[in-house]
Amino acid sequence: MSVNFMSDLLATVSDRGRRLVGLTPKRKAEISRRDIRTLCADLLSHRGEASGVAIAQEILGRYAAMDRVGKKAFLRMLADEFGPDETRLTAAVAAWQRTPSPKNIAEIHTAAEPRRQELARRLNLSPGGTAALVKLREDVLEFIPDEPDLKVVDADLGHLFNSWFNRGFLVVRRIDWSTPANILEKIIRYEAVHTIAGWDDLRLRLEPEDRRCYAFFHPQLADDPLIFVEVALTELIPRAIQPLLEPNRSALPLRRATTAVFYSISNCQKGLAGVSFGSFLIKQVVEELKRELPDLVTFVTLSPVPGFAKWLKSELGGSQKAITASDAAVLAKLANPDWPADPATVAAIEPVLMRQAARYFLDSKRYDGKPLDSVARFHVGNGARLERLNFLGDRSVRGLEQAHGLMVNYLYDLAGIEENHEAYAETGAIRANSEIVKLAHRDEPRAVRVV
Amino acid sequence: MSVNFMSDLLATVSDRGRRLVGLTPKRKAEISRRDIRTLCADLLSHRGEASGVAIAQEILGRYAAMDRVGKKAFLRMLADEFGPDETRLTAAVAAWQRTPSPKNIAEIHTAAEPRRQELARRLNLSPGGTAALVKLREDVLEFIPDEPDLKVVDADLGHLFNSWFNRGFLVVRRIDWSTPANILEKIIRYEAVHTIAGWDDLRLRLEPEDRRCYAFFHPQLADDPLIFVEVALTELIPRAIQPLLEPNRSALPLRRATTAVFYSISNCQKGLAGVSFGSFLIKQVVEELKRELPDLVTFVTLSPVPGFAKWLKSELGGSQKAITASDAAVLAKLANPDWPADPATVAAIEPVLMRQAARYFLDSKRYDGKPLDSVARFHVGNGARLERLNFLGDRSVRGLEQAHGLMVNYLYDLAGIEENHEAYAETGAIRANSEIVKLAHRDEPRAVRVV
Amino acid sequence: MSVNFMSDLLATVSDRGRRLVGLTPKRKAEISRRDIRTLCADLLSHRGEASGVAIAQEILGRYAAMDRVGKKAFLRMLADEFGPDETRLTAAVAAWQRTPSPKNIAEIHTAAEPRRQELARRLNLSPGGTAALVKLREDVLEFIPDEPDLKVVDADLGHLFNSWFNRGFLVVRRIDWSTPANILEKIIRYEAVHTIAGWDDLRLRLEPEDRRCYAFFHPQLADDPLIFVEVALTELIPRAIQPLLEPNRSALPLRRATTAVFYSISNCQKGLAGVSFGSFLIKQVVEELKRELPDLVTFVTLSPVPGFAKWLKSELGGSQKAITASDAAVLAKLANPDWPADPATVAAIEPVLMRQAARYFLDSKRYDGKPLDSVARFHVGNGARLERLNFLGDRSVRGLEQAHGLMVNYLYDLAGIEENHEAYAETGAIRANSEIVKLAHRDEPRAVRVV
Amino acid sequence: MSVNFMSDLLATVSDRGRRLVGLTPKRKAEISRRDIRTLCADLLSHRGEASGVAIAQEILGRYAAMDRVGKKAFLRMLADEFGPDETRLTAAVAAWQRTPSPKNIAEIHTAAEPRRQELARRLNLSPGGTAALVKLREDVLEFIPDEPDLKVVDADLGHLFNSWFNRGFLVVRRIDWSTPANILEKIIRYEAVHTIAGWDDLRLRLEPEDRRCYAFFHPQLADDPLIFVEVALTELIPRAIQPLLEPNRSALPLRRATTAVFYSISNCQKGLAGVSFGSFLIKQVVEELKRELPDLVTFVTLSPVPGFAKWLKSELGGSQKAITASDAAVLAKLANPDWPADPATVAAIEPVLMRQAARYFLDSKRYDGKPLDSVARFHVGNGARLERLNFLGDRSVRGLEQAHGLMVNYLYDLAGIEENHEAYAETGAIRANSEIVKLAHRDEPRAVRVV
Repeated sequence: MSVNFMSDLLATVSDRGRRLVGLTPKRKAEISRRDIRTLCADLLSHRGEASGVAIAQEILGRYAAMDRVGKKAFLRMLADEFGPDETRLTAAVAAWQRTPSPKNIAEIHTAAEPRRQELARRLNLSPGGTAALVKLREDVLEFIPDEPDLKVVDADLGHLFNSWFNRGFLVVRRIDWSTPANILEKIIRYEAVHTIAGWDDLRLRLEPEDRRCYAFFHPQLADDPLIFVEVALTELIPRAIQPLLEPNRSALPLRRATTAVFYSISNCQKGLAGVSFGSFLIKQVVEELKRELPDLVTFVTLSPVPGFAKWLKSELGGSQKAITASDAAVLAKLANPDWPADPATVAAIEPVLMRQAARYFLDSKRYDGKPLDSVARFHVGNGARLERLNFLGDRSVRGLEQAHGLMVNYLYDLAGIEENHEAYAETGAIRANSEIVKLAHRDEPRAVRVV
Repeated sequence: MSVNFMSDLLATVSDRGRRLVGLTPKRKAEISRRDIRTLCADLLSHRGEASGVAIAQEILGRYAAMDRVGKKAFLRMLADEFGPDETRLTAAVAAWQRTPSPKNIAEIHTAAEPRRQELARRLNLSPGGTAALVKLREDVLEFIPDEPDLKVVDADLGHLFNSWFNRGFLVVRRIDWSTPANILEKIIRYEAVHTIAGWDDLRLRLEPEDRRCYAFFHPQLADDPLIFVEVALTELIPRAIQPLLEPNRSALPLRRATTAVFYSISNCQKGLAGVSFGSFLIKQVVEELKRELPDLVTFVTLSPVPGFAKWLKSELGGSQKAITASDAAVLAKLANPDWPADPATVAAIEPVLMRQAARYFLDSKRYDGKPLDSVARFHVGNGARLERLNFLGDRSVRGLEQAHGLMVNYLYDLAGIEENHEAYAETGAIRANSEIVKLAHRDEPRAVRVV
Repeated sequence: MSVNFMSDLLATVSDRGRRLVGLTPKRKAEISRRDIRTLCADLLSHRGEASGVAIAQEILGRYAAMDRVGKKAFLRMLADEFGPDETRLTAAVAAWQRTPSPKNIAEIHTAAEPRRQELARRLNLSPGGTAALVKLREDVLEFIPDEPDLKVVDADLGHLFNSWFNRGFLVVRRIDWSTPANILEKIIRYEAVHTIAGWDDLRLRLEPEDRRCYAFFHPQLADDPLIFVEVALTELIPRAIQPLLEPNRSALPLRRATTAVFYSISNCQKGLAGVSFGSFLIKQVVEELKRELPDLVTFVTLSPVPGFAKWLKSELGGSQKAITASDAAVLAKLANPDWPADPATVAAIEPVLMRQAARYFLDSKRYDGKPLDSVARFHVGNGARLERLNFLGDRSVRGLEQAHGLMVNYLYDLAGIEENHEAYAETGAIRANSEIVKLAHRDEPRAVRVV
Repeated sequence: MSVNFMSDLLATVSDRGRRLVGLTPKRKAEISRRDIRTLCADLLSHRGEASGVAIAQEILGRYAAMDRVGKKAFLRMLADEFGPDETRLTAAVAAWQRTPSPKNIAEIHTAAEPRRQELARRLNLSPGGTAALVKLREDVLEFIPDEPDLKVVDADLGHLFNSWFNRGFLVVRRIDWSTPANILEKIIRYEAVHTIAGWDDLRLRLEPEDRRCYAFFHPQLADDPLIFVEVALTELIPRAIQPLLEPNRSALPLRRATTAVFYSISNCQKGLAGVSFGSFLIKQVVEELKRELPDLVTFVTLSPVPGFAKWLKSELGGSQKAITASDAAVLAKLANPDWPADPATVAAIEPVLMRQAARYFLDSKRYDGKPLDSVARFHVGNGARLERLNFLGDRSVRGLEQAHGLMVNYLYDLAGIEENHEAYAETGAIRANSEIVKLAHRDEPRAVRVV
């Protein structure tokens, strides 16, 4: 494939905005006088074929300028008036019930497709249309709690985005200190795990030779990352986050690096909720790193445990006595926010907390049999193995609040990824290091049922 | 938008092939032992989530290596075994008939979607997947006459491609003598209207300053154009193709150019049949040219008339006497292939042939009320106006055979495009220059019903 | 020219560092044991032809690691031991004095070339060599006051750089918010006229649609600008700098812009002193802006007057009474740094100060007959015209200190540039607006000799 | 370094032509009225500083339009009238003879520099100036046999080009089938060793996976290669060229390749004669290939022996009987051009011819003690070792004519390159495989003096 030609290809895209202005003034005036409902109908009609770009641009421009009330009204209109053609559907179903041919099913499929979907495809003709539609879905998701009828709009856009943002279309790209500033400011803004304080902080995560950052992009949202992962190269699997982010640390010379640590993964586009590319990103980054640094042997995360404190509280408060009274007494000390400063307390808490942490990962289950912890679901669902629990791995206020300082490492061992993933997908089983398994069941010598 | 970042983005794509090879040898062996039916099922299962890239690559690789018999069998399997889940559909229809809610329609829509669609989305994960799927649909289209059951596969891929190749994702790109050779050889191969004889001939269409060529590309098929148009810059609207392609002509200095002539438009990907971008390309090229050369005032085609000779033959042979006996006598001279060489014959034929040509465009209709001529349907459907009929505009063997040498100019007048398009879409009416209208009805002073 | 191919060309450069490592370990060890004097001799010998890259890299690497004492010693060695071959020169001069042929002059030219020049050419083989040599000359310039013998090194590098940085090799490039962060941080660091306080301040100068920034780059110093100019687009020629830099101002819509104001020009590379490209940059930026915004009609600077306060002080103190006693009394009020806050004082000072400002520009001369003011020499030397004096145009501490707040506009009128430049080059005459000429000589009705 | 920014940098260059047109019409008319001698003087004056681009463009444009007579006259003018300022030189020499200071030598150096050099530096300001100056030197070299006075012009341009085309500024670039067509057609045109018959032939050298081509480019001549090398990847060191170029051969799978064969190296720019970059290119290509294909262990040429037949003829005809009568009788059979077709003749000739070939390489010397063979001087001068003589390695007409079919392999063994190069540079000694050494001296058991 011709890289240079490709590159140039995309360069062309950026001019699109300027170019698509070929409408006569009369026509433009006509479009600007119509109400937005009519414009949506126009866009779906023959008119939409001839001057779709202009109409799409007008609709999305007006939408962007609306306040919340206006936006809600517009979205409700989409929900109410741009659904499937029910008459056609009724006829299609009747035909199929008479003659159950593939052709008749196809007609059902077509008839059942909400007209919103075609509308969205045509809105995409507008320069910047894809970004505008992603933003629109973000609005939908925000409004849904108050406006549950908008769920159908959400579903339709989600369906479309799953097709447009097919992982085969995504490109992974290293982010470094020579990345354009407009991209970097988005990295600052989107970092969701360990906040980036500003440009100097960002630089500490990008410039040292033992740091990497990779993001996924889609050609149509080129200056906006979809998801990114921050990586530290280390000699050992790290137990705590603060030393990794320490401003005055020395960078590790590359020749000594053996381990790549994924210490932060952030989704960027709320409007792409449900379009998953995280696992794909990690695997591509693993390949990328192995190619550049063949001496890397370990690929591991250093991850937060967002649901641990809440779960522990409910365990302590629950009627079913899963925690012994003596353990509960120890754990009561966690109520004092300064507990990590007192060595004696720390020594007392560690064994009890770690045992509960092991239980949290291995025994606690959500309604659907999957682990309670969202981060665990993500990594184990990707085929990673729960490798180590790190006591006081995150001493930040947030780390203490949500997980009593607990952090964990998930190990991405390429040889086991598929197997782990399948086991999890079928049974909800978490693969974990045998130490953790033991820990969870130390005082209960029953058969270990977790792999 | 950051052009350079974009460019680099795409550069990354080209390496994908090399990168996505992270499967363990054991896993690879396992995949290679399974039959293709099982692999398709795997790809749709949890397994597909974990090692989808490898499975997709395996399936597409095997397909590419099959002979025609094998390909047909594979495609039939897709048609027969990867349709919608009918049990689920039956239940969904029942639920909707009980409770006609949007949610229940959505379930019908989902249940009626053939599993082939999701399969194709996952096959797209393979490096080069998009190109392979386009090629696969080309095969389907080739087999359909013998295997009509494959129509459902065609329809599903067409549906997907209409989403993936949404015109909002396409980029227009000038093709010139500094375009990579691997792209240029495709231009040579795909030119469908006026054959390009080789590299020297190609150069004559790209290098002179009064020539342009533009193509549409999709980021996922980057070294393969989707459609391209060849343009000559002239002082006047040309009447004939041979002078435009004359190897020894002098190039027109740009400052004298007033007219852009689209003299050849070629679709490149048979597998994208039904995904239309021709009109969009022409409009973008018009914008592009106006930006570069603000003095251009006329945008026009020089087009073949592929169906004229056939139609005329049937008119002459038909029972309904649409052609007078004296005209028929003149037209009989067309049977001698050397007629253009004899001035007297030429003089006799011209007025008669031109009158019939005008009738061909304005009066002849297809079953659906649209013009018989496919090129006319394309340009008039895009909002162009039939501007001029050119007697002996194409003296090539092919031009004489299919249209007795007739060529025509369609005019793209930005001020009228939408109106023309809508009139045509609604009534099938061709907008034509009043001279042509008069010509068609010279001896029949009835009301002109053509717009 | 093929842009894409070009781009890719350069992409290759960036890998050079990694690539040029093909020396055997034995050879590398050998090189690393030699002292730097021997390495310089090696580099000029046959050995330099075979392993020049490695030797050059070693020399520049060692130089970079030296402290000031070491660097001075190395540079003195270059000055003392790598001069011309005097024996050869003596012979060449003798030959020429016998036979004054072109060939014999050529031999003199060659023999008189210090061997430092060839040494520098070979040092340039090292990856990053050009940047290292520019930095080395920066050191030379810093040391010269203490080490005047280094002047010959300075002169030789200057000679070489004038050839390498030939303006035909430079490229102008817009700097904006999508420029890579590593370039932007250099803009922050190099801005010499109106300090940029940080990333937010930088953004105010790059992102609004009425702001532009352009820089010159050399392909071999690609991530380091040579010089840059900041531009504000305005409706009128501005009188003061603070409103232009006001953080809360609204951007001017582009359609209303008529004037491009060059409000800051900064050289970036001290090591390129004497290699002038400022005038060239301004002219290219003018062309660039006219192409993008054909409605711009005025191209003007808003410039500081760095030597004015110093000159005025000497005028006031001088024995030759160029300033009347009453004017001197008024000007004495400038001693109070708060004078701009008192309207009465301001009103008193303005006419007197402005008259002296006009005299400063038109009458004051340096030893060589050129204007005292360095900024005036630059712009008038480029062919600009002194257009307007702006009282209290810069109320910053620095502006008040160096010029009692005075700022001026130089006008770049393309129609007059060459004529102005030549007049200035031949006679030292400043072209100035007639108002300024009048002002300078208001009370002295003698013939105006300036212009 | 920021690759993307770099790329974009260069993209800017391509627009330069359009941009530098900012002269007023009056000024343009003035320039176009002046004679070319005056324009050259102008370009060196103050005027040249202000409107140098336009003047340079005018001069180079007029030169390009001249016929041979005009060009010669212009170049003679450069030789006669733009030499050094002899008055200044006389004064400088006198000053130096009084006071032999570095400053006075510097003044000699400056005064002895022909004004042509500064003129050429300023001509380089014109868009496309570098290419035009290279072409101009090509003319000079062509005219020199008739116009020996032009040698000074040649020398001055050569001096300048050695600085501008410093190897540190060059970039190596792979040429493949996705390279722009305008570059590829130059590869076809410039191939000097084994003619490329057309696009299909070119493709055979670029597209198969066991073929590579690399070229050097200079940023200012971006669509014109300076030198290129064609490479075949093989399992064994090849003995003959025809099998390598065989159209119907199968490509070698990359995993089996152990050897990279440089089978053709062509300089492209006659105007850069004397600016050497061949050795540098080969070493970069070796690095490049090792990086991509770490399994390659042998880097070798398959080279012609351009001077062999001529030398052998003179040996046979010479008075000094270096060749025995019986050998001479065998070699007489070479006169029949069909000798390779007769097995008996071939068998008789081989041992005799090979012995003489060994002598040709090891014993024959030019006036300066270097080998007679120009290709040998190049490769051995680069540090390669003469590895093998290949009887009937090139059966083409040209191969038989110039070398009786002989081809040789030079081995680039990275471990020995510097040593070989130095030995050669100091003593003219060719390193050769011991077999060849033996062969050269088989019947003369004297001490082997060749290294």
